Amino acid sequence: MAQPSEGEGAPPRRGRQPAWIGVDWGTSSLRGARFDTDGGVVDERAFARGILTVTPGGFAAVFEDCFGDWMKPDGTRCLISGMAGSQQGWLEAAYCPCPASLDDVSARLAWVEPRRIAIVPGLSCEHTGTPDVMRGEETQVFGALRLLGLDSGTFVMPGTHSKWIRVDAGRIEAFTTLMTGEFYALLRQHSILARTLPPDDAELQGAAFDAGVAHALRSPGLLQSAFSVRTLSLFERMPLNDRPSYLSGLVIGEELRTRGVQGGEVVAIGAEALTRRYERALAQCGVRVRSVGAQATWSGLWSVATRIAA
Amino acid sequence: MAQPSEGEGAPPRRGRQPAWIGVDWGTSSLRGARFDTDGGVVDERAFARGILTVTPGGFAAVFEDCFGDWMKPDGTRCLISGMAGSQQGWLEAAYCPCPASLDDVSARLAWVEPRRIAIVPGLSCEHTGTPDVMRGEETQVFGALRLLGLDSGTFVMPGTHSKWIRVDAGRIEAFTTLMTGEFYALLRQHSILARTLPPDDAELQGAAFDAGVAHALRSPGLLQSAFSVRTLSLFERMPLNDRPSYLSGLVIGEELRTRGVQGGEVVAIGAEALTRRYERALAQCGVRVRSVGAQATWSGLWSVATRIAA
Repeated sequence: MAQPSEGEGAPPRRGRQPAWIGVDWGTSSLRGARFDTDGGVVDERAFARGILTVTPGGFAAVFEDCFGDWMKPDGTRCLISGMAGSQQGWLEAAYCPCPASLDDVSARLAWVEPRRIAIVPGLSCEHTGTPDVMRGEETQVFGALRLLGLDSGTFVMPGTHSKWIRVDAGRIEAFTTLMTGEFYALLRQHSILARTLPPDDAELQGAAFDAGVAHALRSPGLLQSAFSVRTLSLFERMPLNDRPSYLSGLVIGEELRTRGVQGGEVVAIGAEALTRRYERALAQCGVRVRSVGAQATWSGLWSVATRIAA
Repeated sequence: MAQPSEGEGAPPRRGRQPAWIGVDWGTSSLRGARFDTDGGVVDERAFARGILTVTPGGFAAVFEDCFGDWMKPDGTRCLISGMAGSQQGWLEAAYCPCPASLDDVSARLAWVEPRRIAIVPGLSCEHTGTPDVMRGEETQVFGALRLLGLDSGTFVMPGTHSKWIRVDAGRIEAFTTLMTGEFYALLRQHSILARTLPPDDAELQGAAFDAGVAHALRSPGLLQSAFSVRTLSLFERMPLNDRPSYLSGLVIGEELRTRGVQGGEVVAIGAEALTRRYERALAQCGVRVRSVGAQATWSGLWSVATRIAA
């Protein structure tokens, strides 16, 4: 890669920004992006090499395998977010307690190799004696703030373990985890409800999804509302192909009921298939939604990179 | 079996009560009881022959195999409650709509063989457009009423699918199903929480169970509170053997939160290991509990038998 030439006659730049790559290393997937000098993404890669597939001691080899060529020339640096910083990951990055700003997180990187590869720490917070944790989502939130030009707001990150995050003046003040996606999978695959569901999820049936959301919002809880999948099937009041969408609506609606969501604005960060469902469900609560996709991770990693002294 | 002799000189009794046996045929188990002429249970049997183990058309053979000898002499009758009356059972007994009294249920038996074997129908009710159903629990409630000398009250039947039942003047007015036991099993066996739990449930750890109940009661919902099993484990704030009891407390506490239980009195019907947990959890809500065991089924079947004209 050609080095940018320095202007003749100008004083030699000290601490010229090194080249950076960003890596999102989660439980089940490994993704990377290569940045240009302005933080633009010039290349992306994804591998089915989540941390669950890597044996202890094997992280460096997987990293070199997947991104070794991107780490040339020498001096190129890498920032990693996600579960790679967990106890089961490459190097444990101690949780940064909330409230936490981008500067707080950037000051607590766990360096796998000095001045070469660093892991962004996750965050922890406390709810009346119960801890909560995230790894990776903090980076996406900082990225979404940059992408949207915000410094405050409420963020939802739908997924296996959904996160609701409150940001004020650039600091993540508090957050809450809800096991929404996992409950859906448990009910879909392993519960008695699975017997009344088709083997595969068809595409989203909007009206059935909306009915599930509405039912969950007026129900006192999912232990009770989930049984309606069985009884509506038993009495043949719901077509087979509507049932997965209805169950999805029930579980997402339960998340909104639990959060007591009503009005206002929320930023949803995640894959479009999922954020679209949340937009639809949140509309029933009178909430305006702005959605941001996977680029939030790269934007967040770049934001951290700009905080690191060359 | 010796026929009871009739008093000399007395007019011959018409419609002498036949001998009765009662059968509780559920999804996973098959139990039977033989009654004396006053409804006392003189013998009991249990088999691992729940309806899921019986092929369509195979019910009569399983019944004769398990209880054929008890059906002598000819004229002996049998009442069956439970899932044997479902679509997947021996003979479908149409749901009896709520409100429903013992007389209503007794008038709607599904006779497998006229004057020999009958199935007690389950009940249905409606909650704002969503049906709810039970099969077998109605019989236990009628039995508990007889055993305790009550005609009204609130009943809880803990289990895979817990039922909360309201009885007024001998009629079951309404009921609600909560998938409490099933959610526990899903989280215990198939969720990410399973990774932080010991392979076997030790005996109940009372303080950990109570802490789970308390946490669920102050939490807005299980999607959120369940994650505390993971984080308390992660931060080593809960010993390994406490965790299954804590999770059990969370799920049962969620049931009580969902029901909005506060003060008053409840009758718990079920196996002692489970009703004891509910007594303990309900105590946190200031609820007095009376518990009734498996004999409620036999008492209920006998109550139905006494309503049937010889």
